[in-house]
Amino acid sequence: MADSSDKEAAVSNKQVIFKDYITGFPSESDMATITAGNLKLKVPAGSKDIVVKNLYLSCDPYMRLLMETSSGIFSPYTPGSPITGFGVGKVMDSGNPEFKAGDLVWGITGWEQYSVLKPNNLLLFKIQHTDVPLSYYTGILGMPGVTAYAGFYEVCSPKKGEYVFVSAASGAVGQLVGQFAKLVGCYVVGSAGTREKVELLKNKLGFDDAFNYKEEPDLNAALKRCFPQGIDIYFENVGGKMLDAVLLNMRIHGRIAVCGFVSQYNLAEPEGVHNLMSIVYKRVRVQGFSASDYYPQYSKFLDFMLPCIREGKIKYVEDIVEGLEKGPAALIGLFSGRNVGKQIVAVAPE
Amino acid sequence: MADSSDKEAAVSNKQVIFKDYITGFPSESDMATITAGNLKLKVPAGSKDIVVKNLYLSCDPYMRLLMETSSGIFSPYTPGSPITGFGVGKVMDSGNPEFKAGDLVWGITGWEQYSVLKPNNLLLFKIQHTDVPLSYYTGILGMPGVTAYAGFYEVCSPKKGEYVFVSAASGAVGQLVGQFAKLVGCYVVGSAGTREKVELLKNKLGFDDAFNYKEEPDLNAALKRCFPQGIDIYFENVGGKMLDAVLLNMRIHGRIAVCGFVSQYNLAEPEGVHNLMSIVYKRVRVQGFSASDYYPQYSKFLDFMLPCIREGKIKYVEDIVEGLEKGPAALIGLFSGRNVGKQIVAVAPE
Repeated sequence: MADSSDKEAAVSNKQVIFKDYITGFPSESDMATITAGNLKLKVPAGSKDIVVKNLYLSCDPYMRLLMETSSGIFSPYTPGSPITGFGVGKVMDSGNPEFKAGDLVWGITGWEQYSVLKPNNLLLFKIQHTDVPLSYYTGILGMPGVTAYAGFYEVCSPKKGEYVFVSAASGAVGQLVGQFAKLVGCYVVGSAGTREKVELLKNKLGFDDAFNYKEEPDLNAALKRCFPQGIDIYFENVGGKMLDAVLLNMRIHGRIAVCGFVSQYNLAEPEGVHNLMSIVYKRVRVQGFSASDYYPQYSKFLDFMLPCIREGKIKYVEDIVEGLEKGPAALIGLFSGRNVGKQIVAVAPE
Repeated sequence: MADSSDKEAAVSNKQVIFKDYITGFPSESDMATITAGNLKLKVPAGSKDIVVKNLYLSCDPYMRLLMETSSGIFSPYTPGSPITGFGVGKVMDSGNPEFKAGDLVWGITGWEQYSVLKPNNLLLFKIQHTDVPLSYYTGILGMPGVTAYAGFYEVCSPKKGEYVFVSAASGAVGQLVGQFAKLVGCYVVGSAGTREKVELLKNKLGFDDAFNYKEEPDLNAALKRCFPQGIDIYFENVGGKMLDAVLLNMRIHGRIAVCGFVSQYNLAEPEGVHNLMSIVYKRVRVQGFSASDYYPQYSKFLDFMLPCIREGKIKYVEDIVEGLEKGPAALIGLFSGRNVGKQIVAVAPE
């Protein structure tokens, strides 16, 4: 007996396994890289599964929330199974009529060389445009891009001349928000956690100003220095003390778009935020949002973003590590700010 | 020499004087009732002042914020001068062409028998409809009414069948929000601080359910009991622990309208709010607002509210004390929840 094609041959499959639920900061040892065997790259007859070869995997802060059971409305990771996240891959075989072998795709996949994507909870987009780097579909053209676009243009309702503050400003989302703000004609300041990132914001990404929050003994004073007239729009990625300081500096009818509170994800108890009175005094709108609500408008987003990339109007800084086994360190590096720009794990060449 | 009219005669003027800035809970002794003399009820030639005889004075929680210097964007009270607030009065004389002697008015006035209203910062509306109680212009037809109307209909965007929670629900604003919610076809639950108020909410004001927050050891559990399916709209009047509990019970795309945080006004440091992550998980909108932003639409508001009152579709519970000297106790009673319904001080008959 012999398999009739390579696809039917069983392959080994390197995987990053989630070991068990955690509290506090994640560490590399919370994950294990193993090699499983006997994965068939062909979908059984009648199945709607899709087999994908993973090319790029995305490191995103929300993944920390899936490492505990009390993470809110998300389904947490399953101990003993590969962690999951956004990625870019190539379809090897498909029982789903919307995808066929050879298609390039982005969406939720596993941290492994090959993933079998099941029809329930499938979140997968076909990649139609390959004149831009494929890795962009984990970032500027993927979930972080939609987050920045929807959060800034839809949630913040920016107007020319407004004052915009972005935290985690050199990250996957923040670097885009700052550039969008400049396209609209806003004044934009970013905060980041190293001098290198601050220089990146000011010299490469076009921010009007930036500061290293780790070198500021008083965040309120730093914001007052950068925004003597106050803040119209705060694109919130971090929460905690930064949010408390920003609240003191909001202008009347200011808007705060909240896509995450990364400073809080590793705390057993979230910090208390004390200055919410500003929401009343300044009639501020605080809006939580998720890229997932905007995926139905993904093609409109691409119509905007692709020309920006092709014409060089928007830059995108990526931090790519090579090899699945480097994934755990890259992922936990997000929470110490080790990455410069969008953190990606390159798993395989196309 | 004799004055040619009563108006030119000098009268005495009982006043409630603000003594000095405070921290913590206000007390009656923070104010003093005195009688000043020699107030002329006639406006000097060339002046744009308006002399008003005060009929009703309104006790509103925001007034506590004016008793300290660090109250945000408001101008605090001036020690040695009468406290100010919303009231209903009758124009005795006017240098302002928009008002004339005999007009009934509502707006910002002094806590005294007669006030001289200056042209700068004048906030005064002429009362056109007197088939409803004049005192209503401190409440259902005044600032609290506009707050409830704008906050619920404009800020909360309610839809039939949604689940609405109102804190301080028997107060000047909350009792209206609950009734508006029923008009829209929502399910509405209110919280209040005595059994009497809870009965009022359920039996007179048409709330579907109500609870006494002082008798609930676990606010989160109380909300889960009242809203097993979660909360779509929270009309926030109190802040602090109640807000933290509500955040845990919000539904996806929920809205929180914030017009005040009365539980925080007497604290030296506001309590920390810990559950803001729900804003991200549930994509919640938190919107601070102020009635003042909606005064330009006051006539539209009256077009809605007057028929509701005349047809008995909306009830309004008032708590009226007689006599200016009872004002300080009535005002500080707001913060212990002594009042049942809108707290008003009747100063003089029309």
